[in-house]
Amino acid sequence: MTTTFTNLRDIDGNAIGIRCAGGRIEALGPDVTAPDAFDGAGRLVLPAFVEPHVHLDKTLWGEGWQPGYRAGKLRDYIENERRVLTANTTPPEDRAGRLLARMLAYGTTAIRSHIDVAPDMGLTHVEAMFRLRETWADRIDLQFVAFPQQGLLCRPGTTDLVRAAIEMGVETVGGLDPAGIDGDPDGQLRFVFDLAVEKGVGVDIHLHDKGDLGAWQVERIADYTEASGLAGRVMISHAYCLGMIPEARLARIGRRLADLGISLMTSAPADTAVPPVEALTAMGVTVCCGSDGIRDAWSPLGNGDMLERAFLTAYRFDWNTDEDLRRALGCATHQAARAIGLADYGLHPGGRADFVMIACDGPGDALCRRPADRRVVRRGQLLPAA
Amino acid sequence: MTTTFTNLRDIDGNAIGIRCAGGRIEALGPDVTAPDAFDGAGRLVLPAFVEPHVHLDKTLWGEGWQPGYRAGKLRDYIENERRVLTANTTPPEDRAGRLLARMLAYGTTAIRSHIDVAPDMGLTHVEAMFRLRETWADRIDLQFVAFPQQGLLCRPGTTDLVRAAIEMGVETVGGLDPAGIDGDPDGQLRFVFDLAVEKGVGVDIHLHDKGDLGAWQVERIADYTEASGLAGRVMISHAYCLGMIPEARLARIGRRLADLGISLMTSAPADTAVPPVEALTAMGVTVCCGSDGIRDAWSPLGNGDMLERAFLTAYRFDWNTDEDLRRALGCATHQAARAIGLADYGLHPGGRADFVMIACDGPGDALCRRPADRRVVRRGQLLPAA
Repeated sequence: MTTTFTNLRDIDGNAIGIRCAGGRIEALGPDVTAPDAFDGAGRLVLPAFVEPHVHLDKTLWGEGWQPGYRAGKLRDYIENERRVLTANTTPPEDRAGRLLARMLAYGTTAIRSHIDVAPDMGLTHVEAMFRLRETWADRIDLQFVAFPQQGLLCRPGTTDLVRAAIEMGVETVGGLDPAGIDGDPDGQLRFVFDLAVEKGVGVDIHLHDKGDLGAWQVERIADYTEASGLAGRVMISHAYCLGMIPEARLARIGRRLADLGISLMTSAPADTAVPPVEALTAMGVTVCCGSDGIRDAWSPLGNGDMLERAFLTAYRFDWNTDEDLRRALGCATHQAARAIGLADYGLHPGGRADFVMIACDGPGDALCRRPADRRVVRRGQLLPAA
Repeated sequence: MTTTFTNLRDIDGNAIGIRCAGGRIEALGPDVTAPDAFDGAGRLVLPAFVEPHVHLDKTLWGEGWQPGYRAGKLRDYIENERRVLTANTTPPEDRAGRLLARMLAYGTTAIRSHIDVAPDMGLTHVEAMFRLRETWADRIDLQFVAFPQQGLLCRPGTTDLVRAAIEMGVETVGGLDPAGIDGDPDGQLRFVFDLAVEKGVGVDIHLHDKGDLGAWQVERIADYTEASGLAGRVMISHAYCLGMIPEARLARIGRRLADLGISLMTSAPADTAVPPVEALTAMGVTVCCGSDGIRDAWSPLGNGDMLERAFLTAYRFDWNTDEDLRRALGCATHQAARAIGLADYGLHPGGRADFVMIACDGPGDALCRRPADRRVVRRGQLLPAA
């Protein structure tokens, strides 16, 4: 079925129409129209947002209010989360499904979610997220990371579970602070990369370790990526350490990340150092922004709106020029798509016909106001207004 | 006229009704109701937001898109702004009026705005903001600061203009980086405090100067406040320096600020140090959050929503417990009201009957989502839905 959307503005302010067929963009430009076209009323059109890093299995969206928790150590947060989730009786796919409805209304149609695997829960979260994926397949592309939240080598039995999750169809092997949590950086990286090579999948490592210890692990991840032939399939999430090292070392590391196609994800937190997104992007590194946890035991904040995450990224770095704001939007669209390996992304003939039409005066206005008035097109079909 | 609002939830989650008469709250509690009451449908009710620091005269809200500008020095920004505003032909009160409509819809009914005074514009911005105040008097309480954006002593003629502005009815004498901009800290502070004492008004000083130079000026401002008998009527805006000094010195300064009732305002920027709001609040200092410029020549960001500013304050400090989120809301409500000297503020019998009713699940949910669905009561009267 062919569908047409007219009276739209692209990110440069040009008036365009978009014709879709077979779930792809067939044509777009100033002259594209049709008698039965949807009238965009001058809305800004962007390719649908891509969420490159969220923890859907752990959200408490739609549950009773769970106050935030404050502690000194990562381990305390991990244990607090186990308490909260153990006490919760709503199936993870129900909680996550409520959040997906929100994320879709905001304009996101592709998501990479981490899923906890650990001896105490086994593969139950993976099974729940597989049910979620099946339910939502028509509306949202979900890809998963098997995430050893409680540690990989330091929790006996976890490596078998990660392997089993990959064999069930999880696309990416996850890691977590190879030094800070496992205390065995080479042991964790060897397992993660060996398994990824064996199964032909990618790698996504949470790296919270700071300063030199973090930066050293970024270099080790680069070494493993190079040695394993996984260039282009590795992401490092958070990597606060890259905001804590001298410029010259950052430049050396940045060049390696760019050469090896290792992407970075930041949730752009403000109370800690973060990877300098502008400098890294200029070096050719793919840097995207992600929500991380949304209303979970780690924090009640977050709402699933990638337009807000792009705004927060701009806010984090005091970005304000048009080039800055475009970079921020890129972190939630093209860069995120590249980071998670989404094929045929973007507004061009042949591109996937997933886009969001936002009632606003342009990209800057969209970032400032994040209007709720958005219409979402998925595989060429206009979704009902939220 | 008596009005009643029922089926509301206060910040603690208690079901309450509110009865208003003569522009004040007459009664509130679980049993307050009336046959013709407005049904709040379980909305969260907060005292109306207070914007303690904005530059209404310079907003470009509703104008064509003005790209942000990036420069190294404060002086370059000031000169860029002069270029942009000189080229703009819309009366300042028209631009500001569009923004006020937005701020009111978000739930703000009291605002302190700085107004530029300088030789090249004379008192034209003051005159424009006085027209604005008259037009909006029924809906929003506006108070003003005579702000020497281009410098006070370093721009001959500016002191006469500040004096004239106060004589016209501007409530507060403004200052700007006594050292960094004027190069004569004691000269600027002497003028500002002498004039404030002579006219019986308050003081509000923009302090961007960093580190020791900034902290030294905070101490000088405290000295002048004490010597002039203006305790309780002085605000220091921005004060980044307080985020850059050792804890022991901060504690000493904090105690003086608390003792002298000198309040602090932060826009909670993320790419620079800011006053540690939690620590200062714990010392008894009144710390509020403000928008600063909203879509002006300094930056196109900002949208006038104080609920968002409270969220950004929480985001800036990685706050997430219920106590944290309440503190963030306080920065946009009670603390801001205290900082600008708003009488009878708050939800209690005898308090001004200005409040906002937000469709959400509670204060945390309000901060996370900042729902557009809000209804505003001004002097006991329900305003039309925006």
